[in-house]
Amino acid sequence: MAGIISPSTPVVVVEGPNDRRSFSPLNEGLGKALRFGSTDEAVLTRLRWMSKVLAPVLNAAIRLSPELSLVDLMASGLRRGDECHNRNVATSTALIAQLAPSIVRSADTGDAAAVLEFAAGNPHFFLPFGMAAAKSIADAQHTMPDLGLVTAMASNGHEFGIRVAGLGDRWFTAPAPIGEPRLFPEYSLADVQPMMGDSFITETIGLGAFALTAAPAISSWIGVGPAQAAVLLDEMRAITVTTNTRFLSPFSETPDLPLGIDVRLVARRGIAPAVNNGIAHRRGGEGQVGAGLTRLPLDPFLEAAEELKTTAASGPLPSSH
Amino acid sequence: MAGIISPSTPVVVVEGPNDRRSFSPLNEGLGKALRFGSTDEAVLTRLRWMSKVLAPVLNAAIRLSPELSLVDLMASGLRRGDECHNRNVATSTALIAQLAPSIVRSADTGDAAAVLEFAAGNPHFFLPFGMAAAKSIADAQHTMPDLGLVTAMASNGHEFGIRVAGLGDRWFTAPAPIGEPRLFPEYSLADVQPMMGDSFITETIGLGAFALTAAPAISSWIGVGPAQAAVLLDEMRAITVTTNTRFLSPFSETPDLPLGIDVRLVARRGIAPAVNNGIAHRRGGEGQVGAGLTRLPLDPFLEAAEELKTTAASGPLPSSH
Repeated sequence: MAGIISPSTPVVVVEGPNDRRSFSPLNEGLGKALRFGSTDEAVLTRLRWMSKVLAPVLNAAIRLSPELSLVDLMASGLRRGDECHNRNVATSTALIAQLAPSIVRSADTGDAAAVLEFAAGNPHFFLPFGMAAAKSIADAQHTMPDLGLVTAMASNGHEFGIRVAGLGDRWFTAPAPIGEPRLFPEYSLADVQPMMGDSFITETIGLGAFALTAAPAISSWIGVGPAQAAVLLDEMRAITVTTNTRFLSPFSETPDLPLGIDVRLVARRGIAPAVNNGIAHRRGGEGQVGAGLTRLPLDPFLEAAEELKTTAASGPLPSSH
Repeated sequence: MAGIISPSTPVVVVEGPNDRRSFSPLNEGLGKALRFGSTDEAVLTRLRWMSKVLAPVLNAAIRLSPELSLVDLMASGLRRGDECHNRNVATSTALIAQLAPSIVRSADTGDAAAVLEFAAGNPHFFLPFGMAAAKSIADAQHTMPDLGLVTAMASNGHEFGIRVAGLGDRWFTAPAPIGEPRLFPEYSLADVQPMMGDSFITETIGLGAFALTAAPAISSWIGVGPAQAAVLLDEMRAITVTTNTRFLSPFSETPDLPLGIDVRLVARRGIAPAVNNGIAHRRGGEGQVGAGLTRLPLDPFLEAAEELKTTAASGPLPSSH
């Protein structure tokens, strides 16, 4: 990975093939945060500290450390009960342990301690590192001749969209879904902002719901028991082109996590992908109100599959595994 | 916990009820180590550094940090794929993340960085913290009126022994077993030192083999697949008095890990407890040659059960759960 740069909100930078760079904003932590629309003074003060202290210290530490392998960290995280989208607790502490010696060498005592305290207090500290890596992987996939593979999924609270290998820069969209979220006790469905965020890029590369059997803690929190998680993965296997050989579910004796959503398989089976979804309050600034397993709208996948039929280069439909 | 003291080999100190203190030597890391009988110059140099730098820095950091809950760390570790005896990778990074800010504040840059580097490079960094906590818990149990509970298990390479609640300080012993270890490729059974070590105290409080379903990575390394691990736990349930409500297997929807070996249940069922076992070379100083699931000799348990019959205070035999 390349490091951290800090224009106004500091971002993690991952360098992929062909000098392509991917970015993801450093995670601000739980509670009120800019990503949930909060611009409280406390949020802005923290962002300024993140720009002025956290980002440069982390950047220096990353450059001083042995090369970080984000894929290794995610693979280890899955063996430690994270699905590396909505649960990152073990992966975050593994990243902290790797960087801590260089953080100490990159800052004065006060800043180093503050950076380590912030990191240890944020169970999603790893998330933007994973997101930038996922974007890098998915972007590389987008340039490959594997037509029909979903290479991005994102949602802005109004529309959900996907990009598909072989179909260029076009986004195939549908109204953002609400799903059946598990809400924190004080909230109701009326508070829920439809699906929003760019962290679904992790699901695109086989994390999140596609690795749900790896993370029983998040799975049970959203009301999906081990048996149901296994059933979900069976469904996802029917719409993906291969099995993940790098990300392994800890309790399986053989690789079994589904990888590579193909819009043509989605269209043939009529099975919509599902994703793990953190849910924001409808009013900006209120923060997170719950989480859940959200079934995506079928239309963008069907539309992309139709579009592929009209592109001359479209190859034979792969069989799902 | 109380901190670290450093006579010649530094030890973790845990304070239990009634001012009782428990100790466990800081772990030296993988490879050649004093605990495997090595007194190489490199081993001695590291021990001196551990006494002069590591121990005082850790001790100061522990005193500066919010109170460490070792039981919480072990419980979280089990949710992250450790069984906290032969696998401590996630628990170690969680401990590092908690202590890192205070380590920075407790030492100069060079020492803080060296301590954090040593900790991150040692996948068993947490083990002595867990062992001292386990000893504290087991010692407290030894003073309770739960007659028949096994409150210590240890082995010195010649004899394996147990202590039992209600039977005072007596050790019930048998020749140390060899079991059927998984050896590293370069070694054969002729190299194996019979069972040796004091880390079996963790098994006494429900870690290790008694939490085997929590740690598929170590389980599969020693040749025990998920289905076999579940069968083993069924056996262990038949010789224990309760189910662990604090240590949970990540993939179970309800508490299911067995806790509290009762020598009378062992005698009634004829089932010997099993433990996870790191295996040393027969020649001191050669280091570790393998690991395995080792079935303990029945005799000490049978002998203790007989002895209990003759003690007036012996209560009714509990039913296993």
